[in-house]
Amino acid sequence: MVRDLVTLDQVIEAIRTLAVRGAPAIGVAAAIGLVVALDHDAAASGTVVRDRLPDAAARLIAARPTAVNLAWAVGRLLAVAATVSDHDLVAALRAEAEAIRAEDVAMCEAIGQYGLAIVPDGARVLTHCNAGALATAGIGTALAPVHLAHRIGRRVSVYADETRPLRQGARLTAWELQRAGIPVTVLPDGAAASLLRSGAVDLVIVGADRIAANGDVANKVGTYGVALAARAHGIPFYVAAPWSTVDPATASGGDIVIEHRHADELGELPAGTFVWNPAFDVTPRALVTGYLTDRGFIAPPFLSGSAV
Amino acid sequence: MVRDLVTLDQVIEAIRTLAVRGAPAIGVAAAIGLVVALDHDAAASGTVVRDRLPDAAARLIAARPTAVNLAWAVGRLLAVAATVSDHDLVAALRAEAEAIRAEDVAMCEAIGQYGLAIVPDGARVLTHCNAGALATAGIGTALAPVHLAHRIGRRVSVYADETRPLRQGARLTAWELQRAGIPVTVLPDGAAASLLRSGAVDLVIVGADRIAANGDVANKVGTYGVALAARAHGIPFYVAAPWSTVDPATASGGDIVIEHRHADELGELPAGTFVWNPAFDVTPRALVTGYLTDRGFIAPPFLSGSAV
Repeated sequence: MVRDLVTLDQVIEAIRTLAVRGAPAIGVAAAIGLVVALDHDAAASGTVVRDRLPDAAARLIAARPTAVNLAWAVGRLLAVAATVSDHDLVAALRAEAEAIRAEDVAMCEAIGQYGLAIVPDGARVLTHCNAGALATAGIGTALAPVHLAHRIGRRVSVYADETRPLRQGARLTAWELQRAGIPVTVLPDGAAASLLRSGAVDLVIVGADRIAANGDVANKVGTYGVALAARAHGIPFYVAAPWSTVDPATASGGDIVIEHRHADELGELPAGTFVWNPAFDVTPRALVTGYLTDRGFIAPPFLSGSAV
Repeated sequence: MVRDLVTLDQVIEAIRTLAVRGAPAIGVAAAIGLVVALDHDAAASGTVVRDRLPDAAARLIAARPTAVNLAWAVGRLLAVAATVSDHDLVAALRAEAEAIRAEDVAMCEAIGQYGLAIVPDGARVLTHCNAGALATAGIGTALAPVHLAHRIGRRVSVYADETRPLRQGARLTAWELQRAGIPVTVLPDGAAASLLRSGAVDLVIVGADRIAANGDVANKVGTYGVALAARAHGIPFYVAAPWSTVDPATASGGDIVIEHRHADELGELPAGTFVWNPAFDVTPRALVTGYLTDRGFIAPPFLSGSAV
């Protein structure tokens, strides 16, 4: 998992191919990566870095259009750049990128602390994809309350959707929970509805890649179906994400650009078969029981200036 | 795909491991396989065949507990056996098994003919798993109307859920439709809810492994989630199956034994990870728009004597 990302192309490639994935981690990686890449490419000349910054920022943001944290983190660097001299530019960008990383760790802890209220002793949690430690610089977003509950001695167990096509649940969520000593059960995505019906799940917690002003949530494809099934069986469905995931500039889910990914991700298929492979889906506000953030539980509408 | 199944153990293994799969095909294979295996094992002595029949039948039925066609086909052979002499036994069993195969072909055609009413020119159909030609001796159950509509010149296209863990949609449905010249698009199971929301699907047709007296349907795991999403977006959800799939002796879905399969089917997982891998789920009657059978559209309750 340790990668040295030196050139901007390498940073963009790592984000685009999901070598770095998870909305908060993408923001952190983009910020640090941008600074390191510009510094490296430009051999530490502030003037050259400033010249290259706008184009580099635009290319980085285009790597994954749905993740708002990417544009948000890059935007913070651009804002800092506008306030300092060329001489101080590289040092200021470095400091801001490091601040973004440190804030991400603190953000995860805060989500976990607020989230303890919904993860009592014995709680059985269903999650989708990986919004855990492997998706952030800290203990994750959706899994932060689970990690913290376990840390303070509560018995908690997790059902993890496999999350096709890239199996983040089976590969990442199962790995990090098993390693933390938290019992984890993987199921095929198609089994989530009957699991929720079976009574084996007390609550659902998922992450988010973008939350619109009205509360609609873009997250890994499959989330919407889980939300529908949770609602059908009266099981609480929580979205856990940093404030930076809320995008007041996006009015509703219909305005969110959904990235479509390559057919190859689905594995071997008969020749001549088409593929529909969206990376994300949108869960409407009406299906969300609560929004858990690093500032506590919040409720839509999310107005401009209040969040980011 | 061509297999010579000679001993009873081989027939049971083929059904158990899904080398033979799809509810109607299992019934046909069980009937033919039982006769061939007994005949082979017993060297054509009617007396020996009769001695071995009850145990062989019981072992065969136990191979896959959820598929009612298996018990139904074996039951037909047992019923025939009770009416003939030892001298005529093998020939009578052979004739009955062949009759079951021929009826299966006719059953598929009949489902297709009745089903043309719901597959107009231009229809875009979502299906789950494979209830096509590869699951029957004929043109399938859920896919029969699609095959027939295409044969008479209607433009029809199909979205096929990948259907984890064994990918019957991606492997079998995509293969048979592409081969028939019908456009087919594969999607991850988790994407079905957002596909249904997108307006790209006119109707859903799935098969069934068992239909209870009240209309609850056991089918490949993932079907229930698709049914919930179809209902959420007002898209008709049809179950297509032979009459023999209806089991009046099963009062409701809660009485259906759901087979759980091996963790290995989910592929590589971190050590220490548990797996929940049911083969089927139950879709309640309330979510089913119509039941398409070889005797036309039927409506629950399905009373004893009326169906099988």
